[in-house]
Amino acid sequence: MQPIFIPVALPQQAYQIAIALSSLHQLGPWLLDRSIQSVNLGQKVLIVSNPQIWGHYGAMVQDSLAKAGFQVAHLLLPAGERYKTLRSLQKIYDYALDLKLERSSTLVALGGGVIGDMTGFAAATWLRGIHVVQVPTSLLAMVDAAIGGKTGVNHPLGKNLIGAFHQPRLVLIDPDTLNTLARREFRAGMAEVIKYGVIRDVQLFERLEGCDRIDQRRYIPSDLLTEVISRSAQVKADVVSQDEKEAGLRAILNYGHTIGHVIESLTGYRQFNHGEAVALGMRAAAEIAIQLNLWPGSAAQRQHHLIQKAGLPTALPLSFDIQAVTEVLFTDKKVKDGKVRFILPTQLGQVQITDQVPTTVIIQALKAMQTH
Amino acid sequence: MQPIFIPVALPQQAYQIAIALSSLHQLGPWLLDRSIQSVNLGQKVLIVSNPQIWGHYGAMVQDSLAKAGFQVAHLLLPAGERYKTLRSLQKIYDYALDLKLERSSTLVALGGGVIGDMTGFAAATWLRGIHVVQVPTSLLAMVDAAIGGKTGVNHPLGKNLIGAFHQPRLVLIDPDTLNTLARREFRAGMAEVIKYGVIRDVQLFERLEGCDRIDQRRYIPSDLLTEVISRSAQVKADVVSQDEKEAGLRAILNYGHTIGHVIESLTGYRQFNHGEAVALGMRAAAEIAIQLNLWPGSAAQRQHHLIQKAGLPTALPLSFDIQAVTEVLFTDKKVKDGKVRFILPTQLGQVQITDQVPTTVIIQALKAMQTH
Repeated sequence: MQPIFIPVALPQQAYQIAIALSSLHQLGPWLLDRSIQSVNLGQKVLIVSNPQIWGHYGAMVQDSLAKAGFQVAHLLLPAGERYKTLRSLQKIYDYALDLKLERSSTLVALGGGVIGDMTGFAAATWLRGIHVVQVPTSLLAMVDAAIGGKTGVNHPLGKNLIGAFHQPRLVLIDPDTLNTLARREFRAGMAEVIKYGVIRDVQLFERLEGCDRIDQRRYIPSDLLTEVISRSAQVKADVVSQDEKEAGLRAILNYGHTIGHVIESLTGYRQFNHGEAVALGMRAAAEIAIQLNLWPGSAAQRQHHLIQKAGLPTALPLSFDIQAVTEVLFTDKKVKDGKVRFILPTQLGQVQITDQVPTTVIIQALKAMQTH
Repeated sequence: MQPIFIPVALPQQAYQIAIALSSLHQLGPWLLDRSIQSVNLGQKVLIVSNPQIWGHYGAMVQDSLAKAGFQVAHLLLPAGERYKTLRSLQKIYDYALDLKLERSSTLVALGGGVIGDMTGFAAATWLRGIHVVQVPTSLLAMVDAAIGGKTGVNHPLGKNLIGAFHQPRLVLIDPDTLNTLARREFRAGMAEVIKYGVIRDVQLFERLEGCDRIDQRRYIPSDLLTEVISRSAQVKADVVSQDEKEAGLRAILNYGHTIGHVIESLTGYRQFNHGEAVALGMRAAAEIAIQLNLWPGSAAQRQHHLIQKAGLPTALPLSFDIQAVTEVLFTDKKVKDGKVRFILPTQLGQVQITDQVPTTVIIQALKAMQTH
């Protein structure tokens, strides 16, 4: 199968997302191919990864880069959101200094969203910006985190509060790397895929509805998986191209995230992973949209079923502190002059942005999720 | 006297440098005046300063902002280059979280280059970018650091290795704040002013030659001082407008900095301050340019005299380890694939960029500075 190339057209930096099965070994050649990646990179490449991913794919990526003539080093950081800190970032900086990385040098992020965000932020801020290439190995990173240039680390009291926009030179997606992804992580990625269906691509939504099972990678034929990833990446690329810095349209990508972030935060980032929280957030947005008569219950039902088919949660535990949600909402970084912006569906494939959701409606929506 | 407004025309963000005596109290009104600052800022403003500067000017700036309707808080950080660290940055982040700063919120940097760089970097990276306004109170910051969007903090092993480009919404320069600046700091700023003369503005150079003394603020009439600052800011603004991210032209601003940075680094950032190191670096560049037959000894003599008139050093201590210079040179962030880029004068007001300086010539130039 031919690789699929999706252009991300940004004024200051255009780049491509390359999607192909068994393509990891192409990283080196593709970085040198000016029709795929347009910049002359320097000699030095530092791959940042975590021990597990490195065990699976490190050798292949390293060989591919070395054979293409790059001088390659690697740094492994512990896996997990709780290591997405200024402290881990400092380790990248320290190694960058050891290696005497130059402005023309490149960081390669080989891993999931945590590795991608941290490595991207390190590249954004080392010497005020060096090259970064994203090689996402989780579904979530493939369809979301690796595309669009959002980078960052967490503050002890809030996710992604410290960050920058920094576009990669290339995003290389090899869907085969999902074979080693934990099932729960695969489902988490599915939450974002469903999101793209609801906000922008009803055909993608219907492709997923047509599958018997979407809760594990092995139930999805490789060709279909590649298509689903490509469609999702395409939506993300389109939206980001139109609004790099989240001045307007890009906000629709936060569908399910407004409440999702709060749920993650209030449960200490332990009970739910990001995708599960987004699934709950989409359910909450649906409940709010129904209450505000924005979309029909039948559409909400279809979303509900798809989320459940992906093995994702749709109900909040009874112990969940609903009153606390509104307070946390107002420390979220999307807050503007005290108003919280919601992305609400109006029909499948379409959403609207509003900051006119009464607190009582939010609370009502969350209560509905505890009892049903 | 009318305020002088110098536009900085950048594709993604245009802004102005406002220069006027006794203008600190104008900060609030000017931020609201759409002909001066074009963006609707949010309500919340956090002023970052250091205790000494705050003692002199804090009340005036705070009052001006409060009267203009902003909700104002302030954070004081210890003064000095050695506090320009990720740790100080963390303090700004922590307070930003406490204050629930939003994407529309503004940081105001009230102080010298250290405060400006750190505050700018915090603004660049908090919530992936909030507004920043620069109110420089040192000569160095007025003519250099506050203009052009370079922000950052130091790595324990190297200056400004961690940073980002982030343009301010307004730069407000009140030359009266130089009345409280330490003499040595004033002279350090003069090094950058002389630099602008050599690289781009021979009239500025001649204005300084025409003064009896330029080593203390009090010897320079306020009108002339305002003119000297304006001309310097104009050069910086012109160069930055043509090359925001140092792809080409902007490199000329590093005149005196290539060797200057190494001298600072090798002497542990204690023996010489930044301006003094730049003065030595300009002398070194002059010696190199003479050896390479790029500019005549007579022009070098004029630069030499002006540097000395500003009370700045032109000689290296005999204890200085010249051999160490070349090694450190190659860890400097301006290194590209192992080549060190020099900015060398060809006539007063003009420089050229070259990476073809033999190591032996560098060593020769530094030796000349130890014996003369």
